[in-house]
Amino acid sequence: MALESVPSDTLGAGLKQVQAEIDSVFDAFLTVPDDSRARLVEAMRYAAIGGGKRVRPLLLVSTAELFGVDRTTALRAGAAVEAIHVYSLIHDDLPCMDDDDMRHGKLTLHKAFDEATAVLAGDSLHALAFEILSDTGTSSDPFTRAELIATLATASGKDGMAGGQIMDMVAEDADYDLHTITRLQQLKTGALLAASVEMGAILGKVAPEGRAHLRAYARDIGLAFQIADDLLDLEGDEEKAGKALRKDEGQGKATFVSLMGAKKAREQAHALVDQAVAHLVSHGEEADMLRALARFIVERDR
Amino acid sequence: MALESVPSDTLGAGLKQVQAEIDSVFDAFLTVPDDSRARLVEAMRYAAIGGGKRVRPLLLVSTAELFGVDRTTALRAGAAVEAIHVYSLIHDDLPCMDDDDMRHGKLTLHKAFDEATAVLAGDSLHALAFEILSDTGTSSDPFTRAELIATLATASGKDGMAGGQIMDMVAEDADYDLHTITRLQQLKTGALLAASVEMGAILGKVAPEGRAHLRAYARDIGLAFQIADDLLDLEGDEEKAGKALRKDEGQGKATFVSLMGAKKAREQAHALVDQAVAHLVSHGEEADMLRALARFIVERDR
Repeated sequence: MALESVPSDTLGAGLKQVQAEIDSVFDAFLTVPDDSRARLVEAMRYAAIGGGKRVRPLLLVSTAELFGVDRTTALRAGAAVEAIHVYSLIHDDLPCMDDDDMRHGKLTLHKAFDEATAVLAGDSLHALAFEILSDTGTSSDPFTRAELIATLATASGKDGMAGGQIMDMVAEDADYDLHTITRLQQLKTGALLAASVEMGAILGKVAPEGRAHLRAYARDIGLAFQIADDLLDLEGDEEKAGKALRKDEGQGKATFVSLMGAKKAREQAHALVDQAVAHLVSHGEEADMLRALARFIVERDR
Repeated sequence: MALESVPSDTLGAGLKQVQAEIDSVFDAFLTVPDDSRARLVEAMRYAAIGGGKRVRPLLLVSTAELFGVDRTTALRAGAAVEAIHVYSLIHDDLPCMDDDDMRHGKLTLHKAFDEATAVLAGDSLHALAFEILSDTGTSSDPFTRAELIATLATASGKDGMAGGQIMDMVAEDADYDLHTITRLQQLKTGALLAASVEMGAILGKVAPEGRAHLRAYARDIGLAFQIADDLLDLEGDEEKAGKALRKDEGQGKATFVSLMGAKKAREQAHALVDQAVAHLVSHGEEADMLRALARFIVERDR
């Protein structure tokens, strides 16, 4: 973790804590069995434990905290969202997709194991997300469990993350305008970030109409996150990022940066973060983590 | 559909009806959007609609019928199980897995589209299963929704189907005995067949202790199904099967047939079916479809 880019100690500590906590939830769910399934569970552990910024779980836990939700419950829901995020990275990195060798500063899963194991480990983490959310240990209220699942399933499928990924794939041939790029990114990255905030509110038993300002916050940081990613791809340090950069230009892909230029894109990202923070005006210092997270999203170097 | 192998008209009609009904549930959930996600949804439709025997949905619907469950509800749950089955076939057929070119008598998805689209369409069908089950239109009772999801997620992940698949992959190098092959197949094929029966009983609000005989039925037909698959691989007609056969021997894989011989394997499959049917003794003719399905499983030619 490149701490020099963290805007506040609050956030640095928050991320560090949630990283350890999410690792420990995954550790508990991913006991290596004493049979030939061991290889699968080891692959799941390799990808899920000890890597990643855990932005999504921190978003979920910090939103849940606004409403006094038990932290253990929120962490389990956070691990479910992170399991979806991790599976999508595993499949994204495959040779037939982005063909990446490095992720979080180590070999991608199909490089460290093999492609078939990577496909299956991704699929198993996908299922794990719903195993965790449907477990009575996550929430004793079946309505809450079902609502968490509906939110995460929709955010990850064809009307969410996977839909954004196909738009991104097609983008390499297509001439997208800013409107379409925005839609693409709202699905590809935004949907899961928004689901994280939404799920925190669901755990807090906030009625849908009471979640509008949180949705608006999530939408703004989602776009800011992706603009920051595009800037990172253009200007970042590969070693700090722990993955290959300078890929968008090579693929001739339309991005926020290619369409707006780096300077305007950076301004736009900062404006979105200001707007996101403004949506939290009804909350006091209990929302400081969400504010710090918004700032971190555009200032991170990985 | 090779009707000459169908043991009764009841079953032939039941399969035909459920095939049309499941196609129509998928059709309703898979409207092609008017943007560049169209390619993804078209790929999902290609794989999910108009192929497959629909054994799992018929199992679920026929079990639900024992308890007077509304057919529309049961069909939606059936489509969810089938979405998981279809996604697993898509990923199984990939070059890095079984590398198959034909499925249900047509090109596999990655051959008809491309590998990246096949990975994403599989992932999106995986998510769709949980979108359908968490939808209030499937069941208005959140406890039922959450229980359906817990059952399906566990049956498809590392402790179910995906766990069986990794055991199967490792099997190409390993010397498995009959005990391990049985365990492998209980996970790889049995878990999803058992989940289909279980989900029918969940919809029927049958308490877990009232499901024991149905679980026993499902366990027996699951094993019989796999033995029949092994026999089909050895003796079947590729044209009728709609896929490549004679693969196990080429890969030097341990199977029921390689370990027991074809004659004993066939006897064992028939004995399992008799045993499965015997578990249904407490039910009258309302369980005839489940009995016919058990017979069909060992007599099918695809």
